[in-house]
Amino acid sequence: MMVDGVPYRTIWLAQEGEGAGWQVEIIDQTRLPHIFETVRLTNLDDAAHAIRAMLVRGAPLIGATAAYGVALAMRADTSDDALDQACETLLATRPTAVNLGWALAEMQAHLRNRPRDQRAAAAYARAVEICDEDVAICEGIGRNGLALFEDIWTAKGQQGRLNVLTHCNAGWLATVDWGTALAPIYMAHDGGIPVHVWVDETRPRNQGAALTAWELGKHGVPHTVIVDNAGGHLMQKGEVDLCITGTDRTAANGDVCNKIGTYLKALAAHDNGVPFYVALPGPTIDWEMPDGNAIPIEERDPAEVSCIEGRLADGTTAPVQLTPDASAAANYAFDVTPARLVTALVTERGVCAASTDGLANLYNKEKNA
Amino acid sequence: MMVDGVPYRTIWLAQEGEGAGWQVEIIDQTRLPHIFETVRLTNLDDAAHAIRAMLVRGAPLIGATAAYGVALAMRADTSDDALDQACETLLATRPTAVNLGWALAEMQAHLRNRPRDQRAAAAYARAVEICDEDVAICEGIGRNGLALFEDIWTAKGQQGRLNVLTHCNAGWLATVDWGTALAPIYMAHDGGIPVHVWVDETRPRNQGAALTAWELGKHGVPHTVIVDNAGGHLMQKGEVDLCITGTDRTAANGDVCNKIGTYLKALAAHDNGVPFYVALPGPTIDWEMPDGNAIPIEERDPAEVSCIEGRLADGTTAPVQLTPDASAAANYAFDVTPARLVTALVTERGVCAASTDGLANLYNKEKNA
Repeated sequence: MMVDGVPYRTIWLAQEGEGAGWQVEIIDQTRLPHIFETVRLTNLDDAAHAIRAMLVRGAPLIGATAAYGVALAMRADTSDDALDQACETLLATRPTAVNLGWALAEMQAHLRNRPRDQRAAAAYARAVEICDEDVAICEGIGRNGLALFEDIWTAKGQQGRLNVLTHCNAGWLATVDWGTALAPIYMAHDGGIPVHVWVDETRPRNQGAALTAWELGKHGVPHTVIVDNAGGHLMQKGEVDLCITGTDRTAANGDVCNKIGTYLKALAAHDNGVPFYVALPGPTIDWEMPDGNAIPIEERDPAEVSCIEGRLADGTTAPVQLTPDASAAANYAFDVTPARLVTALVTERGVCAASTDGLANLYNKEKNA
Repeated sequence: MMVDGVPYRTIWLAQEGEGAGWQVEIIDQTRLPHIFETVRLTNLDDAAHAIRAMLVRGAPLIGATAAYGVALAMRADTSDDALDQACETLLATRPTAVNLGWALAEMQAHLRNRPRDQRAAAAYARAVEICDEDVAICEGIGRNGLALFEDIWTAKGQQGRLNVLTHCNAGWLATVDWGTALAPIYMAHDGGIPVHVWVDETRPRNQGAALTAWELGKHGVPHTVIVDNAGGHLMQKGEVDLCITGTDRTAANGDVCNKIGTYLKALAAHDNGVPFYVALPGPTIDWEMPDGNAIPIEERDPAEVSCIEGRLADGTTAPVQLTPDASAAANYAFDVTPARLVTALVTERGVCAASTDGLANLYNKEKNA
């Protein structure tokens, strides 16, 4: 998407200077929203660091960065040992990231039985493909979501603006381009629908206030940041035409596991008759998970709740503590929104009911007896 | 309640040193939770500043401070002009605070027709009474809420701990002592029920993370701070036995207007069969307001959303900016929780259904036709 009028992806091959055509560039997302800075990755360690230190985040982008990490490793050493070592190093950066494992398995399969003198070129080619495939999936989600937006905009008589509420960051910064939940927003905006986005700040890590607000702003999409407490009131007042979020993991019955707080917004949408859509790439459906109850919910560092980072008056960033020293904090990273609260799932293959039948039909899966 | 083993109210007559018996002491709540500091009010301007700069906050405490402000003014000058001037000055500090107007009207009525040489003593006496009346109301709320807590604790088989979720600060810091929603929590804790409180941080002003966590901790009540997004997940997992919040304004039909985000927690409680109680002093019932729809919702400074204050590593406090410079923010202060989501209202007169009949019976009001 655009950054001040210049089109960007979140990861790309360097186009200029020494290393053009083989070094990899990324946006350092840890510095957003206050500083926009790109970083060059010139070797395996750079790529591993970028994932580990969360310069890149979001499942698809982590996978793409890992693929490029293997390519950078192959450029230095095309041996089997180097390939194994690269995959091992990269896998250890964020062991629970599903896309990371998938991308590394892809690279292994693509390179393993190939002559050594072809491995580097093949690695770059496959990394490029992985990125393009992700962009294609997100474009598909965007097109399918756009049709829903157009229907709601028409039903509203094309009056005023189309108010969309989103939670967390399911934007292009989390993917290679377009994003998932934000893809239809960009397409609607680019297509002339006057979209306005209510951006949940998304405590504790504030991916909404920091990343969603930044990327919408840079592309020129009107938006307003709100605290996570505000969405229910806005829906009561008719200020939200639809909600759309991403999901980290979708159970076979359509239950969605997404950033903590998603469930509360889905409840409010249901209570006020506001459509609640969830955007997802097919590969994040967990067909082995019959429903959301069994999905384990990660508990993260309580310091993410008790402290928050922001920009001081002098322009530097620093963490500040919010709670008394003596108070405990707890940090649940995700919650499960039951399928009954989800109006529809928006995938690259189309839109379907959040149900076992809906998903199974779309992906031609045999239903469980 | 207790602060490190010493009993405190939020406002009291100085007991020691010069000014003992007529100067007024308060806790500077702007410095909490990081610094506990008391401040002496020696004249009208001190009292006005304390309200205006929010060293004191919470409707009952604002009223009590205003009453003492009039007493301090009378000590300096007992003329009618001085009385009028004091009331005018104090009313202008926070013009929308209902209790402020009420307390000043009380003081006027109490002093106006009294000989000048009796006014100062009468003013102090009435201010003390206003404080004691507030304490009695909160004690009543606490006793009536305690009975509900005991029932739930019994129904739970007195196993484990009694998990209570609260939003914002409806504690003793907002009143003279006990608080409203927190009064039954203190009584249950003091009475030996192993209460544990989930404290919503309550963005944007973080009254939960800063004030509720501080006062519970100082009294010794086990508690855990969570982000506002987390309560729904905890209720899904059976980790909340009941919710209790305060309310700024209660409509005649039992709709409650409270801190933004209360509605979302009430939805989650309803969806998970968790009792959702709202604690209130009778005087905050707005008998002229038939339901919550017409209650105007204050929009506050967007900077409360885009920035937050906390403690830096060096121990000083500072605001940090969370959002991109170019992003707008919106700051709705309250929302309305419909009576259908409120299990019961807890008042100083007893517990009643959140309904026109429930409230009218409790307060012997004639119902509207």
